[in-house]
Amino acid sequence: MKDTLQSDERIDQLLAQDIQIIQSSTVFSFSLDAVLLAHFASIPKKGTIVDFCTGNGAVALFMQPRTQAKITGLEIQERLADMAKRSISLNQFENQIEIIHTDIKDSLHYLKHDSIDFITCNPPYFKEQPNSKKNPNPYLAIARHEVYLTLDTLFETASKLLKMNGKIALVHRPDRLIDLLDQMRAHRIAPKRIQFIYPKKEREANMVLIEGIKDGKTDGLRILPPLYIYDEQNNYYPEIKALLHGQ
Amino acid sequence: MKDTLQSDERIDQLLAQDIQIIQSSTVFSFSLDAVLLAHFASIPKKGTIVDFCTGNGAVALFMQPRTQAKITGLEIQERLADMAKRSISLNQFENQIEIIHTDIKDSLHYLKHDSIDFITCNPPYFKEQPNSKKNPNPYLAIARHEVYLTLDTLFETASKLLKMNGKIALVHRPDRLIDLLDQMRAHRIAPKRIQFIYPKKEREANMVLIEGIKDGKTDGLRILPPLYIYDEQNNYYPEIKALLHGQ
Repeated sequence: MKDTLQSDERIDQLLAQDIQIIQSSTVFSFSLDAVLLAHFASIPKKGTIVDFCTGNGAVALFMQPRTQAKITGLEIQERLADMAKRSISLNQFENQIEIIHTDIKDSLHYLKHDSIDFITCNPPYFKEQPNSKKNPNPYLAIARHEVYLTLDTLFETASKLLKMNGKIALVHRPDRLIDLLDQMRAHRIAPKRIQFIYPKKEREANMVLIEGIKDGKTDGLRILPPLYIYDEQNNYYPEIKALLHGQ
Repeated sequence: MKDTLQSDERIDQLLAQDIQIIQSSTVFSFSLDAVLLAHFASIPKKGTIVDFCTGNGAVALFMQPRTQAKITGLEIQERLADMAKRSISLNQFENQIEIIHTDIKDSLHYLKHDSIDFITCNPPYFKEQPNSKKNPNPYLAIARHEVYLTLDTLFETASKLLKMNGKIALVHRPDRLIDLLDQMRAHRIAPKRIQFIYPKKEREANMVLIEGIKDGKTDGLRILPPLYIYDEQNNYYPEIKALLHGQ
């Protein structure tokens, strides 16, 4: 196993699903965001799923036990795409999950128009602004800031790839909610389900999960029950623990 | 006291605030929505507050203990405006609260442009559509359906009345969230605070409280901690009980 790992990498296990994943604190490690997105997305049992910004493949890997759909992960950073590919091999998912090293903008070179049933995305959260402070580590800066991917491009590309009534689910920050709703609708995607994540009771939401449908009606938005992460003793709530470590 | 009441009316008491309010099940009774809105709105201690769609004056009355601001309630239905006026007298708030019988659209006949610090509104929730089923009781139909007031007109008028950086807070249904966000911004009001209300744990939100600021920046939207109404035994949660019946 050792030669599948670079010097700064380790293999972590998502106990709830018996999935192994190659991580690196200097390059990329998945966070709870990816686990929550993979759980929230109302993915189909069959068909085609694309995971934008797949990073080390976390969301693609975590969805695998719930579907027989073909999953394609797209990642712009070659090093991360390589980590993802090795994690797919480690779990022997090569027949179901494929990783492509590409900019989302160029994904139509690899995938057909109007062909995808579901897209997931854990995108960079922070707006790229002239003076925005970015992580000095370029791997993390690209993963966290909209250096190479804006919401506009994300939804424009998603809308091209999705079949009619295909869906897209994302995890993002609540302070970008309005941008999300605007950009989805600007690209023919009707927001349908939203779930807010609160770090603790009595605290404001710090994550939002959102799902929309291509060419759907814009009425009937549903706000799902809230999720809390930590209880008063700073332990995970049972629902969260179950996602991470199994029931 | 009897001659202040019409035959179908009763006097209810909001125990938490020792406020009396004239109600009528055949015409209009306040609901929890009004209590939650009055509590959510970050009203100023002084200045001028306007309550659109004041009905029997519930929101205006419930805000009174928290502010010394002059409060003006606007109501299109004469019978309801009259109930509200009598409730104001009953509580001897005539020096602080005034009720005007007017269509919101005509409120600039009574109030000045750019003069108001805060607006509250518990508007009709349902879109007026050619075939929409309305309550056969015209009092309730007007209070619940956008017969006389659309969100467009509501925010257009609010934006005219509010001072720069004046605020507006509303209670509405979550399935109208996108309309709210769109119409606020179409009229120079930046959404800033949102709180979702869930009837019980594990249920979807059935109310949304939203506050925006005139000519504010559109970034920095905050999603406040969720509120639940009923516990597993169908009793009010302590926070809700405190609002209704006092601590």
